[in-house]
Amino acid sequence: MPVPSVSSRGLSTPASPIRKLAPFAEKAKAEGIKIYLLNIGQPDISTPPEFYQALHGFKEKVLAYNPSQGIDPLRQSLERYYHRNGFEQIQKQDILVTTGGSEAVLFSMMAVASPGEEILTFEPFYPNYNGFAHMAGVHLVPIQTDPETGYRLPSRKTIEEKISSKTRAILICSPNNPTGTILSQSELEQIQSLALKHNLFVLSDEVYREFTFDGKHTGILSFPDLSKHAILMDSLSKRYSLCGARIGCIVSKNAEVMQTVLKFGQARLCPPTLEQTAAAAVVDAGDNYFKEMTREYKKRRDTIYESLTNISGVFCKMPQGAFYLMVTFPVDDIEDFCRWMLTDFHLKKETTMVAPGPGFYRTEGKGKCEARIAYVLNSDDLKKAVHILKEGLSVYNKKALGSS
Amino acid sequence: MPVPSVSSRGLSTPASPIRKLAPFAEKAKAEGIKIYLLNIGQPDISTPPEFYQALHGFKEKVLAYNPSQGIDPLRQSLERYYHRNGFEQIQKQDILVTTGGSEAVLFSMMAVASPGEEILTFEPFYPNYNGFAHMAGVHLVPIQTDPETGYRLPSRKTIEEKISSKTRAILICSPNNPTGTILSQSELEQIQSLALKHNLFVLSDEVYREFTFDGKHTGILSFPDLSKHAILMDSLSKRYSLCGARIGCIVSKNAEVMQTVLKFGQARLCPPTLEQTAAAAVVDAGDNYFKEMTREYKKRRDTIYESLTNISGVFCKMPQGAFYLMVTFPVDDIEDFCRWMLTDFHLKKETTMVAPGPGFYRTEGKGKCEARIAYVLNSDDLKKAVHILKEGLSVYNKKALGSS
Repeated sequence: MPVPSVSSRGLSTPASPIRKLAPFAEKAKAEGIKIYLLNIGQPDISTPPEFYQALHGFKEKVLAYNPSQGIDPLRQSLERYYHRNGFEQIQKQDILVTTGGSEAVLFSMMAVASPGEEILTFEPFYPNYNGFAHMAGVHLVPIQTDPETGYRLPSRKTIEEKISSKTRAILICSPNNPTGTILSQSELEQIQSLALKHNLFVLSDEVYREFTFDGKHTGILSFPDLSKHAILMDSLSKRYSLCGARIGCIVSKNAEVMQTVLKFGQARLCPPTLEQTAAAAVVDAGDNYFKEMTREYKKRRDTIYESLTNISGVFCKMPQGAFYLMVTFPVDDIEDFCRWMLTDFHLKKETTMVAPGPGFYRTEGKGKCEARIAYVLNSDDLKKAVHILKEGLSVYNKKALGSS
Repeated sequence: MPVPSVSSRGLSTPASPIRKLAPFAEKAKAEGIKIYLLNIGQPDISTPPEFYQALHGFKEKVLAYNPSQGIDPLRQSLERYYHRNGFEQIQKQDILVTTGGSEAVLFSMMAVASPGEEILTFEPFYPNYNGFAHMAGVHLVPIQTDPETGYRLPSRKTIEEKISSKTRAILICSPNNPTGTILSQSELEQIQSLALKHNLFVLSDEVYREFTFDGKHTGILSFPDLSKHAILMDSLSKRYSLCGARIGCIVSKNAEVMQTVLKFGQARLCPPTLEQTAAAAVVDAGDNYFKEMTREYKKRRDTIYESLTNISGVFCKMPQGAFYLMVTFPVDDIEDFCRWMLTDFHLKKETTMVAPGPGFYRTEGKGKCEARIAYVLNSDDLKKAVHILKEGLSVYNKKALGSS
């Protein structure tokens, strides 16, 4: 009997490269190996007590639908948060609450581009952009950045060459996942100038806003001339260690954009009620929580950078923000090395897991010597994890030498 | 300065027709009018205590990401639920937890159809199917059913005429929102036969499974020959009065479909952690909860049907399930009448709100005399609400007569 095949959209959507090594990790764990997980961006910091307090205070008899744009207390608390960040033009009606930053990205892409149209972005990039683009039928056009420059934006000419009649937006991420790079004022001015010249939207992912260790993070909402072009995609997940709550938002002063994402929001009815209620309490509790968290991550950043640069043949620049960095390793095939670390190597029953570089690129063949490291463990564990990487590299490369 | 326009996808996505009259309702409320809300499917039944107990027992220090396919305890409890419903072939790996039934519909559409491809469905239908189809770039092709037949499926020939080379699936909903019709065994066999002949998927929305008052509900998973064609889209929202929790699922024995929806699921990371934990406890508590709920809704169904058929010129057939029915009113323009009930009419400071029919049709000009009624209030309130409709109709039609 013939069986219908899934859509070409479904076939072409990539599996999560970050989760690809999971089966090997499970097997290692089952064999009693402890794994330092530097492969995913799951912070280990406690969720604020205000969240659980508000959650346990929820007393509605019926857990009902809520407004598609999000509940009022949360939107008001977000308005105040953006004001504290210097974006005083943002009002409640410029904010749509989404089910995680994930939904903010999907809705934003759908709002600006129809199937077959293009969105430019800079690679390496957060792999799920690619997943959402496939789901939306949108073509994500990568523009290369390089380890040697610390993944700074390329020249205006290089970016402009990629703009076609189908281009609808430029997608940026700062502080960057996976590179930890923060876009400078002049880089953002370049983006602004191109967006205005070619009448493009700018989709800006700033979920790591507070994870800024050196210098200053400039948000897309700081550019008044881009007021109608800018769409901010935000999330509470990292900032308040609320990854499992699935609360994010879209912010824009473009009323047509907000009407459009509201229509998408109406189709899915509403984000989860309980988490919105509890998240509002967290945002209202103010900014002290993530100030402390940022101090802790700066310490971790310094630790991991120092440890990594002590390994012969390893290259990375000091990341400025987020809690990731891309590291170039002295190997030919990073996927093989990362898998080998799980299947064939351990140091006193411990090993380290990182995310292979190719998953962060769309261009075939790129990222083969790079890996993303998420420094989401305390400094002592980070030191151990990097030491294991160092020992692993040494054994792996000797083995390669021996077999050649 | 030129401003970029949203995508044609965004422009063409319809606003929720169910929420269109909301501003008039708000105004009436502000003027002190009490409104009986029969326009939306928000049950008034208390959420099960097991849900809140499990919620308050959640003690994780970090509210973390969870697996993209859903947490194990919930998938296991759902497996047991489907077994209790006679679908013993369903195993945990055939179930992907989604963020509400909404995401189950969006993911299923995307998994079976690429942009530009077609999915057949029967109108009137749940309006958000249309929203999701626009978001996915998929063309929803409506096949008409009629009030006179109680919205039964049309002939095989009528359905088959709509199948083109672009058709990828037939979408059905039983018990039906908005009509309350339950597909018979022979109607489902017709669908099966067409799906097998033309190698189409069958997307089956059965979120009202337990709301079956007369006869028996037959699920798509009861057809072994359709095992690889069937995709069940389900939700806990109505069954357990958990609308705000946003927990649903996709169920299929087609491994390629499950791999595809998992890839979509990986892009959005995971459904909300807390609600999954609490929902697992509810599903495990067994089926007594919704048995009682179904008894209550049967009583309401009987009440509303009797009250409505007492109004001169009003037509409806006895609905068999869900908690909706489509009613034909003796008016020319139901949208005008529904709005007028909010802006110009009240009976002792009370009025009634229902959902105008055209929003449930894709075909232009259809549904102009129909409205959907959600009988989500207790029987006494339903009697009052229908009495107000009756009085309103009388005044509205006298006024029309006077002005003609």
